[in-house]
Amino acid sequence: MANKYVYFFSQKESDGDGKMKTILGGKGANLAEMCRIGLPVPPGFTISTEVCDYFYKHAKQYPPELKQQVEDSVKKLETVRGRKFGDKTKPLLVSVRSGAAASMPGMMDTILNLGINDDVVAALEKETGNGRFAWDSYRRFLQMFGDVVLGIDHDLFEHALEEVKRDFGKKQKISGIENLKQEQLNKAVPDTNLGADELKEVVSRYKKVYEAAKKKFPTDPLEQMWLAVGAVIGSWNNPRALKYMELNDIRGLLGTAVSVQSMVFGNTGIESGTGVGFTRNPSTGENKLYGEYLLNAQGEDVVAGIRTPNPIDQLANEMPLAHKQIMEIKDTLEKHYKDMQDFEFTIENRVLYMLQTRNGKRTAHAAVKIAVDMVREKFIDEKDAVMRVEPKQLDQLLHPTFDPSAEKKAGVIARGLPASPGAASGQVYFDAETAEERSELGEKIILVRLETSPEDIGGMAVSQGILTVRGGMTSHAAVVARGMGKTCVSGAGEISVDYKKKTFSVGSTTVKEGEWISLNGSLGTVYVGKIATQEAVLAGDFGTIMTWADKFRKLGVRTNADTPKDTQVAVKYGAEGIGLCRTEHMFFEGDRIVSFRRMILVAEEVKNLRKQLDATEKEDERKAIEDKLRAPLAQYNQAIAELLPLQRGDFSSMFKELKGRPATIRLLDPPLHEFVPHDEKGQDEMAAAMKLPIEKIKKAVDALHEFNPMLGHRGCRLGLTYPEVSDMQVRAVMEAAIEVKKAGIEVHPEIMFPIVATEKELSLCRERAERVVAEVFAEAGVKVDYNMGTMIEVPRAAVTADEIAKHAEFFSFGTNDLTQMGAGLSRDDSGKFLPDYVKLGIFEVDPFQSLDQGGVGRLMKIALKLGKKVKPNLKTGICGEHGGEPKSVMFCHRIGLSYVSCSPYRVPIARLAAAQAAILYGEPGQELKLDFLN
Amino acid sequence: MANKYVYFFSQKESDGDGKMKTILGGKGANLAEMCRIGLPVPPGFTISTEVCDYFYKHAKQYPPELKQQVEDSVKKLETVRGRKFGDKTKPLLVSVRSGAAASMPGMMDTILNLGINDDVVAALEKETGNGRFAWDSYRRFLQMFGDVVLGIDHDLFEHALEEVKRDFGKKQKISGIENLKQEQLNKAVPDTNLGADELKEVVSRYKKVYEAAKKKFPTDPLEQMWLAVGAVIGSWNNPRALKYMELNDIRGLLGTAVSVQSMVFGNTGIESGTGVGFTRNPSTGENKLYGEYLLNAQGEDVVAGIRTPNPIDQLANEMPLAHKQIMEIKDTLEKHYKDMQDFEFTIENRVLYMLQTRNGKRTAHAAVKIAVDMVREKFIDEKDAVMRVEPKQLDQLLHPTFDPSAEKKAGVIARGLPASPGAASGQVYFDAETAEERSELGEKIILVRLETSPEDIGGMAVSQGILTVRGGMTSHAAVVARGMGKTCVSGAGEISVDYKKKTFSVGSTTVKEGEWISLNGSLGTVYVGKIATQEAVLAGDFGTIMTWADKFRKLGVRTNADTPKDTQVAVKYGAEGIGLCRTEHMFFEGDRIVSFRRMILVAEEVKNLRKQLDATEKEDERKAIEDKLRAPLAQYNQAIAELLPLQRGDFSSMFKELKGRPATIRLLDPPLHEFVPHDEKGQDEMAAAMKLPIEKIKKAVDALHEFNPMLGHRGCRLGLTYPEVSDMQVRAVMEAAIEVKKAGIEVHPEIMFPIVATEKELSLCRERAERVVAEVFAEAGVKVDYNMGTMIEVPRAAVTADEIAKHAEFFSFGTNDLTQMGAGLSRDDSGKFLPDYVKLGIFEVDPFQSLDQGGVGRLMKIALKLGKKVKPNLKTGICGEHGGEPKSVMFCHRIGLSYVSCSPYRVPIARLAAAQAAILYGEPGQELKLDFLN
Repeated sequence: MANKYVYFFSQKESDGDGKMKTILGGKGANLAEMCRIGLPVPPGFTISTEVCDYFYKHAKQYPPELKQQVEDSVKKLETVRGRKFGDKTKPLLVSVRSGAAASMPGMMDTILNLGINDDVVAALEKETGNGRFAWDSYRRFLQMFGDVVLGIDHDLFEHALEEVKRDFGKKQKISGIENLKQEQLNKAVPDTNLGADELKEVVSRYKKVYEAAKKKFPTDPLEQMWLAVGAVIGSWNNPRALKYMELNDIRGLLGTAVSVQSMVFGNTGIESGTGVGFTRNPSTGENKLYGEYLLNAQGEDVVAGIRTPNPIDQLANEMPLAHKQIMEIKDTLEKHYKDMQDFEFTIENRVLYMLQTRNGKRTAHAAVKIAVDMVREKFIDEKDAVMRVEPKQLDQLLHPTFDPSAEKKAGVIARGLPASPGAASGQVYFDAETAEERSELGEKIILVRLETSPEDIGGMAVSQGILTVRGGMTSHAAVVARGMGKTCVSGAGEISVDYKKKTFSVGSTTVKEGEWISLNGSLGTVYVGKIATQEAVLAGDFGTIMTWADKFRKLGVRTNADTPKDTQVAVKYGAEGIGLCRTEHMFFEGDRIVSFRRMILVAEEVKNLRKQLDATEKEDERKAIEDKLRAPLAQYNQAIAELLPLQRGDFSSMFKELKGRPATIRLLDPPLHEFVPHDEKGQDEMAAAMKLPIEKIKKAVDALHEFNPMLGHRGCRLGLTYPEVSDMQVRAVMEAAIEVKKAGIEVHPEIMFPIVATEKELSLCRERAERVVAEVFAEAGVKVDYNMGTMIEVPRAAVTADEIAKHAEFFSFGTNDLTQMGAGLSRDDSGKFLPDYVKLGIFEVDPFQSLDQGGVGRLMKIALKLGKKVKPNLKTGICGEHGGEPKSVMFCHRIGLSYVSCSPYRVPIARLAAAQAAILYGEPGQELKLDFLN
Repeated sequence: MANKYVYFFSQKESDGDGKMKTILGGKGANLAEMCRIGLPVPPGFTISTEVCDYFYKHAKQYPPELKQQVEDSVKKLETVRGRKFGDKTKPLLVSVRSGAAASMPGMMDTILNLGINDDVVAALEKETGNGRFAWDSYRRFLQMFGDVVLGIDHDLFEHALEEVKRDFGKKQKISGIENLKQEQLNKAVPDTNLGADELKEVVSRYKKVYEAAKKKFPTDPLEQMWLAVGAVIGSWNNPRALKYMELNDIRGLLGTAVSVQSMVFGNTGIESGTGVGFTRNPSTGENKLYGEYLLNAQGEDVVAGIRTPNPIDQLANEMPLAHKQIMEIKDTLEKHYKDMQDFEFTIENRVLYMLQTRNGKRTAHAAVKIAVDMVREKFIDEKDAVMRVEPKQLDQLLHPTFDPSAEKKAGVIARGLPASPGAASGQVYFDAETAEERSELGEKIILVRLETSPEDIGGMAVSQGILTVRGGMTSHAAVVARGMGKTCVSGAGEISVDYKKKTFSVGSTTVKEGEWISLNGSLGTVYVGKIATQEAVLAGDFGTIMTWADKFRKLGVRTNADTPKDTQVAVKYGAEGIGLCRTEHMFFEGDRIVSFRRMILVAEEVKNLRKQLDATEKEDERKAIEDKLRAPLAQYNQAIAELLPLQRGDFSSMFKELKGRPATIRLLDPPLHEFVPHDEKGQDEMAAAMKLPIEKIKKAVDALHEFNPMLGHRGCRLGLTYPEVSDMQVRAVMEAAIEVKKAGIEVHPEIMFPIVATEKELSLCRERAERVVAEVFAEAGVKVDYNMGTMIEVPRAAVTADEIAKHAEFFSFGTNDLTQMGAGLSRDDSGKFLPDYVKLGIFEVDPFQSLDQGGVGRLMKIALKLGKKVKPNLKTGICGEHGGEPKSVMFCHRIGLSYVSCSPYRVPIARLAAAQAAILYGEPGQELKLDFLN
């Protein structure tokens, strides 16, 4: 039997149904389905997506069977409708629409009124006695077909139409009609005001447009149809469609289907019309019909914005019967689809037709409300409800958002990466210090920097939002902003900043210090001026969905938190503990940085002198070295001692917030140069604060320079070189834990060593830390429950995890670094080529945003297998940025991690994604196989 | 039965033998062995290394059995010798010596004359009638024991001895004796001039030294012995010994053994003496007894340098019988040990005793000659001969060396890393430009830089050697220098360079521009002044050993070569092809850099405009963008076109040198910023050369800045962003290949894509390259045999090698980068902590010098398994720096790589190491197991 490429649908019979989206596209499948459930759908047929697939795989040839199948379907359609293509009494007109399995705005959309020509228009006029309708349909088709199928510049059609309108206006004596701009002209002379004569004139001018463009207008309806089908299929691979697929993470589609449907006409007069509806409010979720319509119009008029459509409620007055029918269809659709539907309809001479239905897009608010309501209405169960909310969307609920219309009006001036969600408006400042000063005066601040460094933390903390020119999704700015819950747009490379002049510019726009801008951190967009924001409200339905999610979820969800405030927010959002506390962030608060820098200044000297001491046995040499060592060592120890009570205080506050939930505390991780100023001004200040010549500061900063700091002297490497810093941190953790325990609060600290690459590093670090713990316990006479573990973020650690696991109670995958080292990508630099890489399909998605499951994921699997071989009950988590990204969370479920950890605002997202993973994939860990090695 | 800890040896019976080095140490085992083969060895016993091991594992306690076993052995020794500890007529004196399984200069070495005290010295004097001998022995023991066992400052003994000498000199009326310095005094009054009375006086003063230091001199011989044994064992863990083990890669020893041997005396008069011998010349390998001796002396006098020993030939005159006996023993030793021996002997009253023998250390020259000679002499077979030469040592043969005595005299002023072997003297210049100018005047140059960058290549090329303050074994300076065969010392951190003043200083030494310094690149040492060098001579024996090596070798050996000259050298040294041609190095020669920089200047602009073009379908916008694109695109293409004939020329010369051997050519790898100047001066020059404002240069350089360039925009990432550069390179390779083929020379180019992390990168790059190849073939009407493959240097590539192998005919492991990314170590930065890491045992050895088999090696195994799963005959090689390091080469054999590739001068090393691997480990690939995963 030949392959079936064409699927007929009518209320009497349909080859397809709603489940066949893969081959009929969403549109085609739902047309068939609506026919099957008895809704009034004009009959037609759908050419399957397999044709599109075949086309691109066979040098742009159709399958040989296609022609016959389409022509048979046309004949069947003619029979069903009792009309014929090109017929001079009862002509058949059709629409041709694209429709992939996923909705795709980039593709050619719709051609209406296909089948019309000079003969047909006359037949229509004669049949309906409605010349205006006939010529309106003809001119619409000429324009759509010319523009979309033949590629004639659509402005040429607009100009022709305008000329006719101006002539008509002159006749009507509308004053100044000559000088009206297009928009004014359309208001003065709406399309509906044009009569049959004017439309006839439009048609005649449109034909001249074809001639001028040297394009032949095909009068044969079948030829028109084949050209339109070709245009739809040809639009499948256009850049806009590809871009949309890329942005929306759409993959694996066969192609687009093409639906050919007999026309019904909303433009036959004031008892006809067309509109769109939602079975519930897509913005609020309210269970009430929502939509709009236009009388005497065809589909494109509703969206084109030339005429303002009416709210659908008004239809109850204008056409009560049609309205009633729509209300019934709303119920039918929801009962059938068990989800909120977005549908299109046309009324032709008081008779209602359904042209499309699909699951309606909705805001996060609406998604949550509809899901919860539908459980109450017994449409769906809790599992369905949990599946109905996109985890990513929750961001909208957890952060302030712009008023959408105000945002639209403002107009994007630049785009960067959506580094930290939310919406913020503020006055621009270019350095942290000024930002802090201005904030004290009550100003709202947007801090704009080429890139941020730890010195900017104070300025970031007082800002509403942060905008950087350089840096990716996991740049310093992005990570810190997410941690703080601040809006951030990073890597907005089009912008050029002039620190000296205190301005930034993009294109022809220049923004000066103190001027207002706005950032949408969820989209990565930048606006000039102030935009009104809406605050986040965690409605009751949100809590309900989260409770249901937790019922199904198997994966733990912790948070990355560095401060008591972070901890508090995260616990409120359901975090089950801290998965990553970056202790170094604490070093920047207040005067601590001074102590820490004092330590750094002498650290190198101390290290070198100690080395010299180790190298000699001679009493006199040793004595001389010891003499030299005394002063710097005192300063070194003093500086560290100053930090102890401060860190202890932080930890104790966090432990109190956690109320017995575990807290993984990572010892000092970044290279020391991140803690010293690199600019002249900062170094001057540092020199002044320390009463040292600036030369000494410069020399120390230079000595810390690294070519590739990501692969440099950091993490446990620092702990081994400057063990007193780790000792202090371990002591602070354990002393705080004892203090909190004594206050009657349960506490479970977990000490984590970063950048471990070898077994020996971990065993040495742990050995030393255990000694400190023992000391603290002995001093206090009290013990607390604790354990120690390691980050797995160096590929070497992943492939030697069997050795490393011997010394660890837990592994925490640092997938930011594991991606950097594993894939050889510097997160701060790869912005130069990663977007191209995604476009080229090298990475399906930016691996810093969503875990590279096929690459970095393999390293994780190897590490898990090896680790669990040695310790079957090893606790395993992830604390990279991926811990809050839904696809990555699902992967973590599938490979059987114990928990994910993410920034506080992402905790609900992770909870929901984890629940969906459990529903979709069943028991955790089923994908922890090294089958790729066999 | 109790554990046996003590092994007796005498000519009559020996518990041990020469194979028991592990527990008897080298010294103890060979003493036993010499007894067994009938050589005259004074009897004694050896305390096994297991005692040392036990001691450190049991809180510094001896095994309980030890005391009895030692005391039994002492009794046996007393019986055999007919002498007793502390006996007042026939006292027993012994020596106590350390001896691990490997020779260890850092440890306590020897205590002679143990067992002496006031009573014993009297007995000796009486027994021998030789007061001088008796008191000489006593004073020697007091000094050695006080210094080594009791830790009394040895200067105090020296001073006391000097005082006696001055008094004696005064008596002898030596003028000015009061003011002679120590050295002069020792010449004026040699030890041998002191008589019994003076030596008695020395003993008396030495006793006062003990008193002043508040140390009791133990008079009981047994107590003396236990203290000495304790000192030997205690010295096992001292810093100098540890350092030696670290430097010499000695691991896994149980500890040191202690040999207690009855004394024979070389200091009884002029018919006694002591000396050291080599059975062949250790410097030249000549088969002729070599050595030196002193009459009336004890062992330490020969090495102490106070008296100048006589060449051993002279002994034939002074003591012909002893000399004859030594000549016989030489033969006995060689026949028995089948290797050149280094031995110690003592003659006591004309009777010869052997105190030690071991395989003699030798220069590379000697090693090669001895191995070849011994095959001819039928002592050993070819396999043995191949095993007799240390691959690392060959460096000495392949590079110029300093005259050893001149080098010793010069004195090291600073140490860095032995980055590129050889010896060089030259005048110091601090910038490449001056170096080039001065070189043209005929000066010999040492280029001194903080670090080098590609801009310095010209300067490096004209220099004799390169010295850098920063950078590791695989820094730019090191890699380029090795490639060029230039001596290089890198990372000499003690040095501070002042570019402005044109000086460098270290400690109190300051060296100005134009002054002479010398570098030993094999040791990493720096000297002030000019040192005479000896040229490398590849003697015939070297060729013989290499031929034998190739008989056994299974692993291919290729070379890393970037120029025809490199290629020529490498082929001469036996390279079987090029494993890595770094095409970018060609960009620096002559004016090419100008073309390349011109390309870089517009590349970003071209890329951005192309992106804009891709993003729009609008005709007018496209036109506007195309207009903007025209000029930069022309410049971009022009610059690339200029490079084509130059690269083609290079390749064709190299192919001609290779005469049909394969050549793997890697496309552009480093990030573009490596090709532009970063200093003001360089940028000025570049601006002038390009007739552009410097601001434009600066902006372009800034735009290329990366935080972690190692993980940045490089390798195939550049190829995907700027495909025309790769196109040009592929075209140059293939056009050159065709040209060479047409000239009748066989040619096998292999195109290699660097920094591949994903399958898709490789497939895209390859697809494009294949198109270029097809074009070139079509144009020429000729085809050549070629293939394409990839570097495996990104961990992600290693773990997805199954996917990557689909698009590759070969894998070449880039273990420099694989180590950087795999272990998270920046090669240029890790110098700050890697030395400590080696000391702490975290890495057994710097993983950039010798492959980290347990970590990076696992990644390699995974990649090999995965790659061969898809392509069983995949060609696999290594082209990192490890390809020329013997241990790494052996690993490559064991995991079954097809070949290693290394710098030309290391080719013989790799050949020899590969042969040894085949001999030691049998068939290749036996270690390619992923058993760690099971």
